[in-house]
Amino acid sequence: MITPYDDTYFMKKALEEAKAAFDKGEIPVGAVIVIDNRIIARTHNLTETLTDVTAHAEMQAITAAANFLGGKYLKGCTLYVTLEPCQMCAGALYWSQIDKIVYGAKDAQRGCGAMGTTLHPKTSIVGGVLEEEASMLMKRFFIEKRNLN
Amino acid sequence: MITPYDDTYFMKKALEEAKAAFDKGEIPVGAVIVIDNRIIARTHNLTETLTDVTAHAEMQAITAAANFLGGKYLKGCTLYVTLEPCQMCAGALYWSQIDKIVYGAKDAQRGCGAMGTTLHPKTSIVGGVLEEEASMLMKRFFIEKRNLN
Repeated sequence: MITPYDDTYFMKKALEEAKAAFDKGEIPVGAVIVIDNRIIARTHNLTETLTDVTAHAEMQAITAAANFLGGKYLKGCTLYVTLEPCQMCAGALYWSQIDKIVYGAKDAQRGCGAMGTTLHPKTSIVGGVLEEEASMLMKRFFIEKRNLN
Repeated sequence: MITPYDDTYFMKKALEEAKAAFDKGEIPVGAVIVIDNRIIARTHNLTETLTDVTAHAEMQAITAAANFLGGKYLKGCTLYVTLEPCQMCAGALYWSQIDKIVYGAKDAQRGCGAMGTTLHPKTSIVGGVLEEEASMLMKRFFIEKRNLN
């Protein structure tokens, strides 16, 4: 069976969210959470808009997905996020017991891999899906920001 | 000069919040954030009430304090929390660049120490303030919960 619902399909949706963040002057990170090929959360980084370090795309996505499901555990769910989650977000994902994390660009400095954050034993993690697109958007953001200052 | 404003004074305020969580059937963790001896955030764990794994006392306190200050960095602030922060909360505190973290009871399994979470280089951390009170409240909660089930 041919299905459009693969990791690339959902990462494109996360990238759309990242672009929405970019347009608001936020570090462009976007996320979606999916269950049974259905998107139940679409979020992007809002740390500047909300003046709140906890307003990463993933944190909002976890809250939104739990709200949709009516339960705090994200069993059967996959998170697609354009940048590798940080310690905070990976720590939240640990509590959520989410099935799978798929990220785009690696964060070699502050990503959960480099930081050694523990994921839940039930959670698998895959990186590098549409990495180039996510990475280019981040680079463009920081170049434009530098030129403005 | 004699001042009532020491770590014990503020941890008592955090313990009051933990008791409020207890009364709601929440794992009893409470937090306050203080700047210049003034409490600018008082929060307790609401993960069950909000059906949200991100609703730890510390996360709410960071959001509330940033809202009070009008800026996302908690410079000059101290967090008092009755239980050692987890990876998620320590990760959020990393982003906040908070000056100091004071906790009550150690979380030997899921605390940021055991989990190896990286704190911001500007942040100091101290544990064991009113540890017995915080620990007893936790134990009472789990004993009562076990007896109910």
